Amino acid sequence: MGVGITEFLWKNELAAEHPQVIPISVFIAILCLCLVIGHLLEENRWVNESITAILVGAVSGTVILLISKGKSSHILVFDEELFFIYLLPPIIFNAGFQVKKKKFFHNFLTIMSFGVIGVFISTVIISFGTWWLFPKLGFKGLSARDYLAIGTIFSSTDTVCTLQILHQDETPLLYSLVFGEGVVNDATSVVLFNAVQKIHFESLNGWTALQVFGNFLYLFSTSTILGIAVGLITAFVLKTLYFGRHSTTRELAIMVLMAYLSYMLAELFSLSGILTVFFCGVLMSHYASYNVTESSRITSRHVFAMMSFIAETFIFLYVGTDALDVTKWKTSSLSVGGTLGVSSVITAFVLLGRAAFVFPLSVLTNFMNRHTERNESITFKHQVIIWWAGLMRGAVSIALAFKQFTYSGVTLDPVNAAMVTNTTIVVLFTTLVFGFLTKPLVNYLLPHDASHNNTGNRGKRTEPGSPKEDATLPLLSFDESASTNFNRAKDSISLLMEQPVYTIHRYWRKFDDKYMRPIFGGPRRENQPEC
Amino acid sequence: MGVGITEFLWKNELAAEHPQVIPISVFIAILCLCLVIGHLLEENRWVNESITAILVGAVSGTVILLISKGKSSHILVFDEELFFIYLLPPIIFNAGFQVKKKKFFHNFLTIMSFGVIGVFISTVIISFGTWWLFPKLGFKGLSARDYLAIGTIFSSTDTVCTLQILHQDETPLLYSLVFGEGVVNDATSVVLFNAVQKIHFESLNGWTALQVFGNFLYLFSTSTILGIAVGLITAFVLKTLYFGRHSTTRELAIMVLMAYLSYMLAELFSLSGILTVFFCGVLMSHYASYNVTESSRITSRHVFAMMSFIAETFIFLYVGTDALDVTKWKTSSLSVGGTLGVSSVITAFVLLGRAAFVFPLSVLTNFMNRHTERNESITFKHQVIIWWAGLMRGAVSIALAFKQFTYSGVTLDPVNAAMVTNTTIVVLFTTLVFGFLTKPLVNYLLPHDASHNNTGNRGKRTEPGSPKEDATLPLLSFDESASTNFNRAKDSISLLMEQPVYTIHRYWRKFDDKYMRPIFGGPRRENQPEC
Repeated sequence: MGVGITEFLWKNELAAEHPQVIPISVFIAILCLCLVIGHLLEENRWVNESITAILVGAVSGTVILLISKGKSSHILVFDEELFFIYLLPPIIFNAGFQVKKKKFFHNFLTIMSFGVIGVFISTVIISFGTWWLFPKLGFKGLSARDYLAIGTIFSSTDTVCTLQILHQDETPLLYSLVFGEGVVNDATSVVLFNAVQKIHFESLNGWTALQVFGNFLYLFSTSTILGIAVGLITAFVLKTLYFGRHSTTRELAIMVLMAYLSYMLAELFSLSGILTVFFCGVLMSHYASYNVTESSRITSRHVFAMMSFIAETFIFLYVGTDALDVTKWKTSSLSVGGTLGVSSVITAFVLLGRAAFVFPLSVLTNFMNRHTERNESITFKHQVIIWWAGLMRGAVSIALAFKQFTYSGVTLDPVNAAMVTNTTIVVLFTTLVFGFLTKPLVNYLLPHDASHNNTGNRGKRTEPGSPKEDATLPLLSFDESASTNFNRAKDSISLLMEQPVYTIHRYWRKFDDKYMRPIFGGPRRENQPEC
Repeated sequence: MGVGITEFLWKNELAAEHPQVIPISVFIAILCLCLVIGHLLEENRWVNESITAILVGAVSGTVILLISKGKSSHILVFDEELFFIYLLPPIIFNAGFQVKKKKFFHNFLTIMSFGVIGVFISTVIISFGTWWLFPKLGFKGLSARDYLAIGTIFSSTDTVCTLQILHQDETPLLYSLVFGEGVVNDATSVVLFNAVQKIHFESLNGWTALQVFGNFLYLFSTSTILGIAVGLITAFVLKTLYFGRHSTTRELAIMVLMAYLSYMLAELFSLSGILTVFFCGVLMSHYASYNVTESSRITSRHVFAMMSFIAETFIFLYVGTDALDVTKWKTSSLSVGGTLGVSSVITAFVLLGRAAFVFPLSVLTNFMNRHTERNESITFKHQVIIWWAGLMRGAVSIALAFKQFTYSGVTLDPVNAAMVTNTTIVVLFTTLVFGFLTKPLVNYLLPHDASHNNTGNRGKRTEPGSPKEDATLPLLSFDESASTNFNRAKDSISLLMEQPVYTIHRYWRKFDDKYMRPIFGGPRRENQPEC
């Protein structure tokens, strides 16, 4: 639809006056189309939102390529700022806002070891692997910084696909690990990518690795603190002033604006906006969302989910159209065979790099939890699923690759163009092929879970709760009710007794109840035993 | 807060890398500040959101002026596209979405005569008045097109201020007239402004006025039809596919995207996006919002209100900072006295131009409704309030003035700079002085209404319903419940018997119930007598 209009208007005089109007219209029309197709394919659980968006993008790209007679497949020129300033923040904030905090913090150490140590291991393996094999394939011209960047680019995972298939209630540990790692991993990759940019390669010595790690720790901690601070300030302001008294609109506006401000402030101070906005989201859902009116609470949850959803679809749609960018293909220094070789090498090291930390770290986690007797250990089947869940590369990889190898989406350097096209191929291949295979794999490994899923509880990440429950559910799901907590506490008291994480968690809850909640808001847990 | 950070970072290296980050951060921080101050001043009903935003903007402008040592007062450079593509659509869409359709359509003819004929009369008076008096004040250099543009620029009103003080339940007719006119008037001004741009002054003859009018009618009708079409398509798609089955997020996304698409399509076809998006909003709230899940209905209403709120605050904030733009003041061809004279002339003709249609058209309306005996006639006091309500000039005036007299917010022409500064002065003066006086005036003319308002039912336009009711209210407020309707119908049956508008309305309702609602969605009115 949009494309037909575009063809007609490409030569329109308006194009000169409002250059943005045409691409925005076309892109929104395609986005709508994508939503409708995604909905119609909902029951077909082999494809998912990401795959739909990429395919629709590719088709649109083809149509535009034909209309423009082979000149361009793009509707919008890739804008790194568009991605990092407008599209990424809502996605990450929503992840923080919707995360089941209890699960997340129960498995905090495991998630962190996967999400942080894992990225380090994966980055090292991919960097060294590509540095070792690329020249042998005749692909030369990349600097040491480029190789390290490649390592971080291909260490960021896209777990949406797997999350859509896993069942949160049946395998809570697995679900929370995959979800948690997906979020932390994104943040770590971006932080590490930025840390790599700061290495001075001319004065490289033994300290460099330590410097990168120190830089990483500094970025990680300050970003987290900033996010927590903004989240707490928002909660405090909302609680003290109680905007809802006069206007629910203002409550919502302040939540959205403060969330965005946290990201921008982090960027201002050269920190990691992605981490800041994630923790800001966690804090907002933990405190701030209790200080607003009921309707604002429902609305905020849906608004953040919607913004995240649109941003994600937008990115995959872009990746789809970008796959057909002739200019980059022509500029690339590699032949078709060479491109295939390089992409295969990257994919192989992606597989290897992930295996190299998932299995050892799982074994380590199981060892740490050896005193617990219940199903809390990560079985080998679960390890395979965790490994598989992080094989898909997505929007963050693309964005980082564009940041490293292009200047505002354009590159004239053959080597850089080759890297961009290879990134696109790896993202397309992993999303499409690995994505398609996720369902059968999970079916095979967890037969029961999979069968449960056919009833259509998809898209967990953005909508926890079926539509019918939605009006009331958020009031419960933000934090489980007292009675549920009590039962859970009884159930898991024996299990958790010997875990150090649990002790920290218990002290945190005491502190939270006594000092934090009275100041920053949240439901009281008075008539509930301290578990 | 934001400003302190800015000072520190103005020279930061990041500024070069991400030029947008600093101004966006500062602007968002100031927006948040604005919200908080607006909330704190809530009980003080002499000031309103617009006045707060302008004053905060002016203070921020002063601070920035001092920091930059007199170079600039701007955080963001005015971008006509930013306004017309991103800020205006949510405001107008929200107006259409939240409008009480029943009231609006009951008084349709009166609202249309105020909003359309009124703008024509006002435009003619202001254009001729300024054309006659400007040269006498020594202000020369404006073309005929400029004078006509000035007429339309100063015919667009900003009724938010009055709406915040009027009480919808006590003076329903007055409220719906002020609100309805405010919306139609915005649209008419923009459409007329665009029609003026198309006049060929070199071949001016008797047909020109007719051509402008024809052009206006064409733009008005096609834009309306496009808006209705997009609204109906959205309703139909939502009803047929029932997205909520799988994902409430998708429902919301499709509503937001289609609303925006309607605006962009209108702009693409050189129509009036403002009218299109308004009617799209009306249709969406009349049909589409019944086809979504309950939580989406609540969410959509709040989301649109929030987006509109942020956009409005943003614009007034901008006007505030722009008032201190030294460059424009220096470029202006007018002395301080000359500027005062020109501004006074404009303000005088604004007063006159509005009086010239409010009183005659009110008398005409009363004459048409002479058979009805109840309080449905517009009393003289009400006429004064309607007149006063439209004296404030706001965001649309500023935007149109920038469009006419600057190129992306910058002008080097002394005459154009003078017009921009004069527009700013008129907007500031009318918003601040007339805005401040609205409360006492309404108090004086409608003593009972005013006293009612001190309980704090402000900001009607964006939040109908106090926070406590919010979670359930939307389900009722979209269309009154059957029993209410029945009582109302009984009450007003005698009143409406003799009005032609009523007959049209009755046929429309029959048609709506029989054909439209079954196809496009909406509650059934079966067990309810046809009033």
